[in-house]
Amino acid sequence: MSIQTLVEKIKKLGSPVVAGLDARLEYIPDCLTEDIRRESGATLEAAASALLRFNFGLIDALCDVVPAIKPQAAYYELLGPAGARTLRATIRYAQEKGMYVIADVKRNDIGATASAYAESYLGCTKVWGEELPVYDCDAATVNAYLGTDGIEPFLKECRNRQKSIYVLVKTSNKSSGEFQNRDMEGKPLFVRVAEKILAWGAGLDTPCGYNEVGAVVGATYPEEQKIIRSLLPKAYFLVPGYGAQGATAQDIANAFNPDGLGAIVNSSRGIMCAWQKTGHNGTDYQEAARAEAIRMRDDIVNAIR
Amino acid sequence: MSIQTLVEKIKKLGSPVVAGLDARLEYIPDCLTEDIRRESGATLEAAASALLRFNFGLIDALCDVVPAIKPQAAYYELLGPAGARTLRATIRYAQEKGMYVIADVKRNDIGATASAYAESYLGCTKVWGEELPVYDCDAATVNAYLGTDGIEPFLKECRNRQKSIYVLVKTSNKSSGEFQNRDMEGKPLFVRVAEKILAWGAGLDTPCGYNEVGAVVGATYPEEQKIIRSLLPKAYFLVPGYGAQGATAQDIANAFNPDGLGAIVNSSRGIMCAWQKTGHNGTDYQEAARAEAIRMRDDIVNAIR
Repeated sequence: MSIQTLVEKIKKLGSPVVAGLDARLEYIPDCLTEDIRRESGATLEAAASALLRFNFGLIDALCDVVPAIKPQAAYYELLGPAGARTLRATIRYAQEKGMYVIADVKRNDIGATASAYAESYLGCTKVWGEELPVYDCDAATVNAYLGTDGIEPFLKECRNRQKSIYVLVKTSNKSSGEFQNRDMEGKPLFVRVAEKILAWGAGLDTPCGYNEVGAVVGATYPEEQKIIRSLLPKAYFLVPGYGAQGATAQDIANAFNPDGLGAIVNSSRGIMCAWQKTGHNGTDYQEAARAEAIRMRDDIVNAIR
Repeated sequence: MSIQTLVEKIKKLGSPVVAGLDARLEYIPDCLTEDIRRESGATLEAAASALLRFNFGLIDALCDVVPAIKPQAAYYELLGPAGARTLRATIRYAQEKGMYVIADVKRNDIGATASAYAESYLGCTKVWGEELPVYDCDAATVNAYLGTDGIEPFLKECRNRQKSIYVLVKTSNKSSGEFQNRDMEGKPLFVRVAEKILAWGAGLDTPCGYNEVGAVVGATYPEEQKIIRSLLPKAYFLVPGYGAQGATAQDIANAFNPDGLGAIVNSSRGIMCAWQKTGHNGTDYQEAARAEAIRMRDDIVNAIR
């Protein structure tokens, strides 16, 4: 699914929200895990089963109001091989429900190894003459520290399979300025990375006006957002940091273009843990997640109107 | 296993070689895969079984001449959940044979997510009150673009479990200078990252004189190696790029300290594919890998003598 298709989905649903599926076990209501714990005890496989059930329930509740999900690889790797199975099944289920899936993997490596990552998350694995899809997401996040060598294999999947990538530019965390905001030959490092994104996106424009090469730009840094927006008018921004990390809808208004497009805003805990605020012990986790996704949509749409 | 234990193993074996286990299927001799292909056909599971067999054979052949292995996560993720099983089994087998295992994952993320990565690769996963080891390697590679927030969870595992990390400083690939060598407020970015390593290593010195926080420094850039060596006398260097990427033993001499220690040098294809040069169709892949590891050891030891 290309950025073109994501933009169509965003328009259709009227929502720029992406639901982060980054569950630690404590985010899953007890009512969903009790039988699994009783039958299997505390194993990685049992935890991965609980996570799968939670993810499927969230996808069912969100798929007609939210255009995209973003599973964060770390929480699946934390459960070993069973977590990898849950990740793969989650991706496939969300895609069956018509959602755009961003693998939040922040991968970075040199040529041949970067190719293996690109094939795993966006392309196909070649096994004795057969091409087998593995995770086959619509998009992935990448880290640019290694330069063009590390990005080119992902661009190849963008060109050949209409996939998209989001390059880390300015991250939402407190210490992101330690390197990203320091001056590199007259401009902050994050601007130098944004400049490279312009080059990497060459030939990857789509009819909707946006390019397959996007940027990760934290909601918590509105000033940097404005600078990056002006440098990269055609890049889609993946914006983490809304809600749990403290950024408001007003803080992210700069990430959008005047057409009301140009950014998707992630919420993970805000949506996944919405049930913790309703006093029903999680029996309403689906309704709570859906209500929060709708509230967040309206909050953002009002702020950028 | 701490960096202290690695140094003891290096001294005992007289070898600073780390064997990169990064196999694409084409690196595995046909004689190892024929029966698997015949029985299972071209599936991810069959490929992961073939890779496991190859890795175990290499570990058997290398464990008394090479102190460490470095599985590159990308090649396991390329095989999906079955690849994750092979990765885990490979790590466990190498540790049983007494080898130090570096997870080459180059992970980077913000606080809570970086914790999940650190727990997966170096620590333990908490499942309903139980602490379960997942990959439980001795060391991992990390990318510093996100600053201290992204590194601190790994430092916690170094402090609590005597693990080590290698931070990407100057990578071995051609385009590594695009960001790493540009001037950041008077010094190249790679020097700024090295300066942070000094801070991150505070309190993590070990009795052998080396610190748990090391650096990835490409063999292909001897001048940068010299600069980083002088800045970080107590950091162990993980040095990729010898052999297949074109660097010679002379090129890496600068990575070592006068005590003959301070660096481990990776070879992946050189060792894994040594069988392709002997004319025996891979029936001798173990002997060929072992001979190459010994040749490489002698080549390096002579260059730094």
